[in-house]
Amino acid sequence: MADTVKLVEEMARKAKAAAREVARLTSGVKDKVLLETAERLLANREMLQAENAKDLERAQEKGLSDAFIDRLTLSDKVIESMAQGLREVAALPDPVGEVTRMWKRPNGLLVGRVRIPLGVICMIYESRPNVTIDAAGLCLKAGNAVVLRGGSDAIHSNMALASILQEVLARHSIPGDAVQVVPVTDREAVTELLKREEEIDLIIPRGGEGLIRFVVENSRIPVLKHYKGVCHVYVDKHADLDMAYEICFNSKVQRPGVCNAMEGMLVHREVAGEFLPAMARRFKEAGVELRGCDVTCSIVEDAVPAKEEDWGFEFLDLVLAVKVVDSMDQALDYISRYGSNHTEAIVTRDYARARRFLQEADASLVLVNASTRFNDGGQLGLGAEIGISTSKLHAYGPMGLEELTSTKFIAYGDGQVRE
Amino acid sequence: MADTVKLVEEMARKAKAAAREVARLTSGVKDKVLLETAERLLANREMLQAENAKDLERAQEKGLSDAFIDRLTLSDKVIESMAQGLREVAALPDPVGEVTRMWKRPNGLLVGRVRIPLGVICMIYESRPNVTIDAAGLCLKAGNAVVLRGGSDAIHSNMALASILQEVLARHSIPGDAVQVVPVTDREAVTELLKREEEIDLIIPRGGEGLIRFVVENSRIPVLKHYKGVCHVYVDKHADLDMAYEICFNSKVQRPGVCNAMEGMLVHREVAGEFLPAMARRFKEAGVELRGCDVTCSIVEDAVPAKEEDWGFEFLDLVLAVKVVDSMDQALDYISRYGSNHTEAIVTRDYARARRFLQEADASLVLVNASTRFNDGGQLGLGAEIGISTSKLHAYGPMGLEELTSTKFIAYGDGQVRE
Repeated sequence: MADTVKLVEEMARKAKAAAREVARLTSGVKDKVLLETAERLLANREMLQAENAKDLERAQEKGLSDAFIDRLTLSDKVIESMAQGLREVAALPDPVGEVTRMWKRPNGLLVGRVRIPLGVICMIYESRPNVTIDAAGLCLKAGNAVVLRGGSDAIHSNMALASILQEVLARHSIPGDAVQVVPVTDREAVTELLKREEEIDLIIPRGGEGLIRFVVENSRIPVLKHYKGVCHVYVDKHADLDMAYEICFNSKVQRPGVCNAMEGMLVHREVAGEFLPAMARRFKEAGVELRGCDVTCSIVEDAVPAKEEDWGFEFLDLVLAVKVVDSMDQALDYISRYGSNHTEAIVTRDYARARRFLQEADASLVLVNASTRFNDGGQLGLGAEIGISTSKLHAYGPMGLEELTSTKFIAYGDGQVRE
Repeated sequence: MADTVKLVEEMARKAKAAAREVARLTSGVKDKVLLETAERLLANREMLQAENAKDLERAQEKGLSDAFIDRLTLSDKVIESMAQGLREVAALPDPVGEVTRMWKRPNGLLVGRVRIPLGVICMIYESRPNVTIDAAGLCLKAGNAVVLRGGSDAIHSNMALASILQEVLARHSIPGDAVQVVPVTDREAVTELLKREEEIDLIIPRGGEGLIRFVVENSRIPVLKHYKGVCHVYVDKHADLDMAYEICFNSKVQRPGVCNAMEGMLVHREVAGEFLPAMARRFKEAGVELRGCDVTCSIVEDAVPAKEEDWGFEFLDLVLAVKVVDSMDQALDYISRYGSNHTEAIVTRDYARARRFLQEADASLVLVNASTRFNDGGQLGLGAEIGISTSKLHAYGPMGLEELTSTKFIAYGDGQVRE
C-alpha cells in the first residue's frame, strides 16, 4: 500500500511536469503523434492481441460474462476503430490558443480570453481497453497530460497500448510522462489519485454507477461525471403522430443499450387513444416490452402495469415505461422528477409548446421533433467525445475537445496602473 | 445535530424547487427585484444596523480583532455600497437564454448551445455580511436559487439582510426559498450542505485558506475556489524601466491587503543593477519591506535576506520578496513553482518575450505591461464578480454572471431519426 501511494504520487508529479511541455506543442506535432499512433496500432496488431489474450484468458478463468469478455476483446475491428478515432481527432481543429473574445477597456487595456489546456486529466475506467487510446488522443490534442487507470482485467492490454503511444512520443521528443497508464491494479491507486489535487486538474470516471459514485464521494479533484441516461420523449397533443411513431421507435429501438436511448414515453391524454395502439403494435413487432400507467394499460392490452421503480429506471434494454399525462405541465413535472438531465424530446406542431419545452426541460440536450439518439458528440457536430456530462459545472452534454480546455484572461497593456 | 441535518436537507430541497421558478423569471422581473432590494436596504438602514449591533456586541465580548469587527460592521457606507452593487448587477445584460452558437447538421437538424442557470448555488463565507447581498444579487440575476451560509458572528446581520430580500421576493410572487440564509451556526450545517449533491449544483466558499480546504476536502459537490493570490511581476531585461517602476509600485502598494497585489518581484540580472536601487528607494518611502535573494541584497542595502518560506508567500502586507533571475526561463520556472495561478505580469518591450510569457505563464490573468491589480471583474469589464477562481474547471479568473451559468444543447428538428 505504501508503495502504491508513492508510485501514484510520483506518476502525478511527472504528469504535471510533462503537462507544461504538452501545453506548448504545436497542432502540427500533436496531429503527427496521433496519426503515427494510428499507424503503429495497426502495425502492432499481433503484439496487441497477444497481450490482450492474457487478459482474456484470465477473464475466462474468472468466469466473467460474455458481454464483459466482448468489451475486453481487442478484435481487428476494435483496433481499426481506435486508429480511425485517432485520425478523426487529428482532423479536428486545435482548441488551444483560440482567443474566444477580446475587448478594449476605457484605459486602453486590451483584454481577452484565450483557450488553454486544463493540465493533467485522469481517466478512471473499467473493462474497455479502447478507452486508453480514445482518451489519450483527445487529451493530447487538447494539450493535456493524462493519467489512465483502466480496469485490472484489462491491464495487459492497456500497458501494451500505452507502450505504442510511448514509442511515438519518444520519436517526437515529447516526455513519455504525458501519457501514463497506472501499472498497479489495487483500489488504493484510485483512492490515492483522487487526492492528488496539487497535480491533477480533472477526473473523468467512465463505467457503472458504482464506480462513479465512489469517485465522486472520494475525490478532492473536480469530477466530470455521467451517472445515467433516463431519456424521455413527450408526445404532445399537437404532435404529428406519424412523426411521433418514427421518433419514439428510433429513440427506443435503434440501439437500446446506450445512454441516449428512450427509457420513458409520455403521451398527452388527448392523443393517447389514437397514438398508443399503433405505436404499441410497432413496438411489439420489435420485441419491446411496455410497462404502462393505468390509462396506458386500459388502452394497450399487452402493456404490463408499471411498478413505481419503473418510472425513471434506466432499462438499457427493449423495455419502455409509458405514461399518459393530462398536460404538458404534468410531462415537465414528470421529467423534472424522473429524468436524469441527459436528453429530453418533445414531438409537437405547436410553436409555443416547442419553445416552452426547450426552455424548461432540464437536460444536457433538449430536442424538438427529433430522436433522443442524437445526444452524441459526433451526431451533434463536435467530433469525438470523451463522455457525456449530466451535471452542469464546466460541461453539460457531450464533452469534445473544447470541454478538455479552460480559458485564461490575457491583457495587453502599455503601462496601465490602477488608480 | 439530527435537527441540523433535517433542516439543511429541507432547505436544500426547497431551494431546488424554487430554482425551477427562478430560472423562468424574465430579466425585467429580476432587475426589478434587485432595484427594489437596493431601495429597501437604504430605507431599512436603522433596522439593519440595530441587528448588526447585536453581532458587533458579541464580537466585542469575544475580544475579536479590530480588523474582524471592521469587516463585520454594516456602516452607512457598506449599506450604500451593497445597494449600489445591486444597481450595477441590474444594469448588466442577463446571461440566461443567450444562444452562444448555433449550427446546422447535414441532416437538417439545427443544433445550438443556450445559456442556462446552474440551479442552486451555495455560498459559504465568513464575517462580511455584505456578501449576503452581493452573492444573492448575482445568483438571482443569473437565474439561480441560492443558499447562504455566513459566519456565526454575522448571523443577526445576515438574517436581517435576508428578510429584506424575502419581502421583495414576496411582492413579486417569487418563492422566498430562492434566497435562504442558514439560520443555525454549527459547523454540522456546513458538512451537511456539502453532501446535498442531489439539490446543490455548486459550492462557492469565500474566506481563509482553512475554510476553503475544509470545503474542498468534504464536498461531493463541485467547488469554485480561490486559495490565495501570490502574484508576480517579472521585469525583463528589455523592460522600459520607467514603466516597470510604475507597474511594480502600483502592483505592490496601491492596496497591499488584497489577492491581486504583487507578492514577488522577479528582475532580470542585466537590468537589476540599474532598476533595483531606484525601485528600492521608492518602496522604502512607501514603507515596503524587501526580502531579497543574495544578488538583491548585494545591490540593495536595506533588503533583508529572504528565507525559503518567503518565496511564494502571500504577505497581504507591505512586504515583498525580490529575486534576480538569469533568464526568462528561470522567471517562468519560478512562477510555475511559487505562483498560485492567480495573476502574473511581465514588463518588456520585446515582442517575442511578451508573446511567450502570455502563453506560458499559468495564471488566471497574464498581463503584459500592466499592473497585477487589474485582476478584478469590474476592472476587466465583466461587471460585478462573485470571486476569483484559481482552478481551471468551469471558471478560471474573475467569476461574473456568465460563470454562474452553464450551457445546454438544444436541437430543432423536423422528424430526424438516427440511421
